[in-house]
Formats: sequence, structure tokens, C-alpha cells
Amino acid sequence: MNSNIIDNLVKTLKILPGIGPKSAQRITFFLLRNKQIGIDLYKSLNDVMLKVNQCVMCFNFTTESICSICSNQERLNYGQICIVENPADVFAIEQTGQFSGVYFILFGCLSPIDGIKSSDINLDILENRLKKNIIKEVIIATSSTVEGEITSNYIAGICKNHNIIVSRIAYGIPVGSEIESIDFNTLSHSIIRRYEINY
Amino acid sequence: MNSNIIDNLVKTLKILPGIGPKSAQRITFFLLRNKQIGIDLYKSLNDVMLKVNQCVMCFNFTTESICSICSNQERLNYGQICIVENPADVFAIEQTGQFSGVYFILFGCLSPIDGIKSSDINLDILENRLKKNIIKEVIIATSSTVEGEITSNYIAGICKNHNIIVSRIAYGIPVGSEIESIDFNTLSHSIIRRYEINY
Repeated sequence: MNSNIIDNLVKTLKILPGIGPKSAQRITFFLLRNKQIGIDLYKSLNDVMLKVNQCVMCFNFTTESICSICSNQERLNYGQICIVENPADVFAIEQTGQFSGVYFILFGCLSPIDGIKSSDINLDILENRLKKNIIKEVIIATSSTVEGEITSNYIAGICKNHNIIVSRIAYGIPVGSEIESIDFNTLSHSIIRRYEINY
Repeated sequence: MNSNIIDNLVKTLKILPGIGPKSAQRITFFLLRNKQIGIDLYKSLNDVMLKVNQCVMCFNFTTESICSICSNQERLNYGQICIVENPADVFAIEQTGQFSGVYFILFGCLSPIDGIKSSDINLDILENRLKKNIIKEVIIATSSTVEGEITSNYIAGICKNHNIIVSRIAYGIPVGSEIESIDFNTLSHSIIRRYEINY
């Protein structure tokens, strides 16, 4: 590459998750050959950087001060709050259409090893919100990792202190999977948490 | 996602090569969480879109009207021109330090199936340049694909018409590879084109 300007774009693209040096170069040349897409990307990026902030209720990204879910009175009154790690989780759960309450995004998990404490992932703010007695049920949808479990246990503790129903999304075999390909832990959980078939 | 602005960025990122829907979402959330990187990307993109154009000699991307390689009198006088498909190939060959001439970028290959003719990949411009009798040797570095070979043969034909030496970069086993893992065609080439060891 003979231009610092082009190099700078490659270097910045390389910082993005999942983009290595080769991809960054490929994307740069693609944008140079397809200038309209480059201009579209530039405009979208400008919009996002200038207009998007975080919802004061759930911390999801939004262009308003309160996001469309938290400002929906029906969903607020439903009394359920779903605790997730990332905005992408909200997106995934919304697609299922199985949840009618509001969300709370932690942006991470408790991790003693990495020194991430409860206040780093807004758990103090969550506790203050639970104290207000508007929430009837907390649904914990953190990852099924060590950190996710620690975080889940911590939140369950808060709920217990405030006498709020708390649940964890189910472990089990993924839909469409073959039993023989499922790992030991998942299969154990799916047997322990089996449900009776009513016929 | 509850915002059109965020959706637009995801949609635009999805168009980029090698970026699927999940990656596009992941990058978007990453940029929202790391606004400085988003701003850097925005600035780099703006610079590239506004300031970069194509070299009038080799068609590589540059911020000048003639790129740094084509404006280097020493390289021009060397009398060699290397024909490549993409700017990334120039970058790769420059890194070897084995080539002292100038380049010519086709931005594609001849492809009768896709209806790509010689004028679509600037071969008419190349022929005009070769007519001027300044180039002493043409080195063809197109891909080792059907299209790359067709293009190579076409260029070799032009060179023959104008009595210019023409060469093709060598086929053979990649450095560091094990013979048993090399495909039949490559191994055939590497045996046919074997070189005598002088000791």
C-alpha cells in the first residue's frame, strides 16, 4: 500500500472484532472499488456515532433517552425484567416473541479473575430498581459460562433479599439436535429438568 | 434492534466482503461500546472516500494522480511491467522485494462465461502502452485459475505481436509444504519446471 490514508483505514478496520489483516485489506479495496457503499457506510457510521446513546433504564442502545421497549407502558406493567449480558441478547430474545417484559443489560459478567465487580456491571442500579417493588419476576438470561453462573447466583441473591420471584432460562438439548452429539453436561441438565408430557 | 439508525449500520456492514449478519451486529455493538474507534473509522473512511483515486498509469489506488511506484523514474526505466489482478497483489509482491519494475492492475480477469472482455479489464490500454516500446519484459502474475490462465494467454499473445519478452510467475510447491499434501496439478508443474542445482 503506498498511501498512509489507505493504511489508516486498514489499521482501523483491523481493530474491529473478527477482522484480521487480510480481511481489513480486502474490505478496504472493496470500498475503494465500490465508493457508493463506502459513502453509505460513512453516513451510517456518522449517524450512529452522533445520535445513538444508551437507554437510562435498560442501558440498551437507542436514539431516545428511553428505548422503545422501556417506554412501552404495557411491557413495563407486565412486571418481568430479563437480565442479559449484551444488546445482541435482547435482539435474540425479542426475535423469539416469548417475552413481554423489559430488559436490563449488564454489559458483562461478574469475574473475580478479571476484577469485574457488581458495580462494574450496573448490579447496584439493578438492586435499586428491584427495591421499588414494581418488578414481580426477574428472568436471568446470562451465558451458561462460569462467569454467567456467578452473575446469575449473585442476582438470585439480590432477588431473594427483596422477595422477588427469580428464574433462569432453561438448559437443555438445542432444538433439532441429535442426542449423541450433545455434551455430557447439557444432557445431564436436560434429564434433571425433564418435563412431564400431559396427554 | 430498536433503532433504524443502528439497523442501517448493520445492513451496510453486511454488504462488506467476509462479514455476515452476526459479524455485522457484533461490529456495530463493538463500535457503540468503543466510540473512539467508531470515530477513527469514520475519519479514515472519510479520508479514503474523498482523497483516494486511481493512478492513471497502473490503476492502483493513490492520493496523487500518479502513484509512488509509477512516479519512481528508476522503476519506470527498469523496463519491467508486472500484470496483476488486484491492488492486494501489488502489496503482496512489493513485500517480497523481488520486483523492481512497475505494475499494471487489471481489476479482474477475462471471463467468457461472465462476459468480461479485454476492454473491461483495461487490456486495450495495456496494449497501447506496450506499443510504445519502453517496456522490455512483461511479467504476468494473474491467478492460477481458469480465468487467470485465459487472461495470461491473451496478454502473452499481445506481447508476441509486439516482440516483447513475456514471463509467467512460477508454479510449484509452496515453501514449507510437505510433498504428500500438495495437489496433483501443482506437483506435476513443479516436476516439469524443475531447476538444476548448481554446486
